[in-house]
Amino acid sequence: MRVLGVDPGLTCAGFGLVERSNAGVKAVSYGAIRTAPGPVPGRLSSLYDRLEELIGSLEPDALAVERVLFNANVRTAMSVAQAAGVALLAGAQADCEIAEYTPSEVKLSITGDGAADKARVQMMVRRLLGLPSTPKPPDAADALALALTHLQTRKLRRMQDSA
Amino acid sequence: MRVLGVDPGLTCAGFGLVERSNAGVKAVSYGAIRTAPGPVPGRLSSLYDRLEELIGSLEPDALAVERVLFNANVRTAMSVAQAAGVALLAGAQADCEIAEYTPSEVKLSITGDGAADKARVQMMVRRLLGLPSTPKPPDAADALALALTHLQTRKLRRMQDSA
Repeated sequence: MRVLGVDPGLTCAGFGLVERSNAGVKAVSYGAIRTAPGPVPGRLSSLYDRLEELIGSLEPDALAVERVLFNANVRTAMSVAQAAGVALLAGAQADCEIAEYTPSEVKLSITGDGAADKARVQMMVRRLLGLPSTPKPPDAADALALALTHLQTRKLRRMQDSA
Repeated sequence: MRVLGVDPGLTCAGFGLVERSNAGVKAVSYGAIRTAPGPVPGRLSSLYDRLEELIGSLEPDALAVERVLFNANVRTAMSVAQAAGVALLAGAQADCEIAEYTPSEVKLSITGDGAADKARVQMMVRRLLGLPSTPKPPDAADALALALTHLQTRKLRRMQDSA
């Protein structure tokens, strides 16, 4: 099972592909998609092209996208929601299984504490994936955390279904 | 000049193509795009396909999309922002000129009053386009109003530039 985590954003979107096999869980590829400053439609188009490319080359079975919450900056929230829409679209077009998780759901799944700080989540991502250092930029670490959350959520659901 | 107005939405998105020629301004096509109930990614994908089709057949020079504001229902605002993102993407991919207008900007442009009610905007859309009745559904009338707003904004800008 290959899961592509996507931490959506217009300036910088994180991505991370995690694979679970009999050998365990590993990070296959991760990084960030940055778009050049300019009008929003062109940036959404660049993001879409890069995501389509990544989905084509990494062949994920599922996409795990951060669910946008409207709390802090309204202007940012809008552009993040637009970027998330483009990510969900790219996933649907590739017939991926798609799930969205809030930041608290990710924190809870990765650290056991829905209010954990970023550093703790990043440290656990590194440990769970056996990486030599914390994935950079932070958006990439967040994307890997989303992918791990999806694997764990599916596992829990299977356990519940067979109980 | 052909402008496609888009009133984004996941359940129902309005569209309306307005053409300005030497003969004046007329509505070429308008209506609504409805997506079947189901998970968001599939609905975004249906919306994208229909918009791509419309842009391909109507060949607009410009897209005028309603700018999403976060005031009322947060859950609705998020899905509207995602739908708007998909519309902006489809426009950018077709190399259209793209503009976003808030509801108040549209009301001001169409009726001269940024706080006009919906009925007044719809009546003016009907009058400006010489339509026999108010365009239905309301989303289609809103989309035509967006397209008219873009034509008027461009005209004003040209007048200012040459002044």
